[in-house]
Amino acid sequence: MHLIVTGGAGFLGSRLISALLSPKNERLGLDVTHITSLDRVACPLDHPNVESVIGDIEDPGLVRSLIREDTFGIAHLAAIVSSQAESDFELGMHVNLDATRAILDACRLHSKRLRLLFTSSLAVFGAGVGRRVEDHSCVKPRSSYGTQKAIGELLVSDYSRHGFVDGRVCRLPTIVVRPGRPNAAASSFASGIIREPLSGVPSVCPVSPSLSMWLSSPETVIDNLIHALAIEERLIDEDRVINLPGISVSVEDMLGALERQAGKETRSLVSFEHDARIDAIVSSWPESFDTQRADALGFHTDAGFDAIIDKFIASRSST
Amino acid sequence: MHLIVTGGAGFLGSRLISALLSPKNERLGLDVTHITSLDRVACPLDHPNVESVIGDIEDPGLVRSLIREDTFGIAHLAAIVSSQAESDFELGMHVNLDATRAILDACRLHSKRLRLLFTSSLAVFGAGVGRRVEDHSCVKPRSSYGTQKAIGELLVSDYSRHGFVDGRVCRLPTIVVRPGRPNAAASSFASGIIREPLSGVPSVCPVSPSLSMWLSSPETVIDNLIHALAIEERLIDEDRVINLPGISVSVEDMLGALERQAGKETRSLVSFEHDARIDAIVSSWPESFDTQRADALGFHTDAGFDAIIDKFIASRSST
Repeated sequence: MHLIVTGGAGFLGSRLISALLSPKNERLGLDVTHITSLDRVACPLDHPNVESVIGDIEDPGLVRSLIREDTFGIAHLAAIVSSQAESDFELGMHVNLDATRAILDACRLHSKRLRLLFTSSLAVFGAGVGRRVEDHSCVKPRSSYGTQKAIGELLVSDYSRHGFVDGRVCRLPTIVVRPGRPNAAASSFASGIIREPLSGVPSVCPVSPSLSMWLSSPETVIDNLIHALAIEERLIDEDRVINLPGISVSVEDMLGALERQAGKETRSLVSFEHDARIDAIVSSWPESFDTQRADALGFHTDAGFDAIIDKFIASRSST
Repeated sequence: MHLIVTGGAGFLGSRLISALLSPKNERLGLDVTHITSLDRVACPLDHPNVESVIGDIEDPGLVRSLIREDTFGIAHLAAIVSSQAESDFELGMHVNLDATRAILDACRLHSKRLRLLFTSSLAVFGAGVGRRVEDHSCVKPRSSYGTQKAIGELLVSDYSRHGFVDGRVCRLPTIVVRPGRPNAAASSFASGIIREPLSGVPSVCPVSPSLSMWLSSPETVIDNLIHALAIEERLIDEDRVINLPGISVSVEDMLGALERQAGKETRSLVSFEHDARIDAIVSSWPESFDTQRADALGFHTDAGFDAIIDKFIASRSST
């Protein structure tokens, strides 16, 4: 079967494609044999069954033209991240809202009901939810990114209710440790304060050491996205939006784990310099979730932050 | 000062315009002297300071052209109602979502920050909120109308947070007794079962007598919309969305009040015939709200359902 992945050239997208085509995923009951990556740049994967299309996801005609006879779904991962969606309001609305709508309408107008995976974020929560989020906590975003993701959730749910699409929405924790360079996500520092010191490079933390964040490793998030794509529809029919499991860790405890894994000197490469703009966004996000529902649905959790650092070190040495 | 009212030809819009221009509203601190009604049909009011513009509210250029030097805000009331938004999905998305966005962008691109009143609905709630809604209850619409209104709320909140607009969102209870003819709102019967018998006409109730609804008279809703337009911004700055007060009344108790006001024979004109489509929409709405916040902000409530019928009878005889 064929799957379209928007944002397929990105960090999560390319990992998702790679994982879906690896033999170990056959057991999941997802028989994905061909994948089309749709992104503004080429998908970095070199695989005979991956087609890389460079184009605008906001173009409804382009998305429709990529849907084939054997297409079973779309994994819609492309997005403008939090800081950028806040500073470039029009771009954020265009990509995070208009493109999501264009993809939903491409599905609606297709003759066969397609499965749609949409990645949302804990940024849909803001003031008024308290420190711990329940499955029925109130969505009150305090950023344009969170607003646009919350709107995407509402649209996927309504299109699914109408039967236009078989939608699955995953609210992602903050993903650490991301490899590569810092990006325009407000949470980018959370990877930076681990990744940079492990390479001997200083890193600046813009928030207080006591700030707790809701985290997941990239590997666990990819496992969970595949699980969300594969899960039986009847299990999520009533509520398409899933708060993915994560672990709640303070910046201080993240650095404690870094010290345990890599020594005092490595940890000492992290300094603190408060950034009010970053802090306002990140501290509006909840620090912990009740994930009973996701747990019961079989989604995965990391063992702890030391394990997350371990995985990152292992992935660095394997590439 | 000048105000634009979308849906100004409609039931609420024309009453809002009329009330704003009546001398008794001067005391509210809202100095509205001129009003432009924007609607697909002409505003029925004949008043020298009311300009009636016939056009599409989805046309951003048209909305922008109506903003004058002395415009202080827009009351955006135009909408496709619940049953119609459910059956004509594209029309609902177009009017309830695209037009709201066009109006917000017209405000954003205007040189002066405008006040924006947006009418939302209890239909933003659905499964999972329980029978009684708190101020922080979870928005999980179970209709396209509710979805589109929930998206409008998110947009108004985010545009307000950016300072693009000074937004105020009122979640309206079901309004009874509406005069005139039944409309395509799923809740239309709630007015019909009072209005029709009072005119000696039979009426069919599509839901169970035990179903409770969250109700407000038109007069109280208009008072509350004016209050929402007039209220100091600092009081709602943290949360732009207000659950308006109402009263929770079962269909049975509505008919009891009808019998008290108009006799057994009048009540006997109401028969029951279950309509699964209507029932699915209306019974997904909450029956009662905790309105502590709205009460503290000075919003008004009806004295009871007998008083609502009284007001309707009085308004009929005065026109």
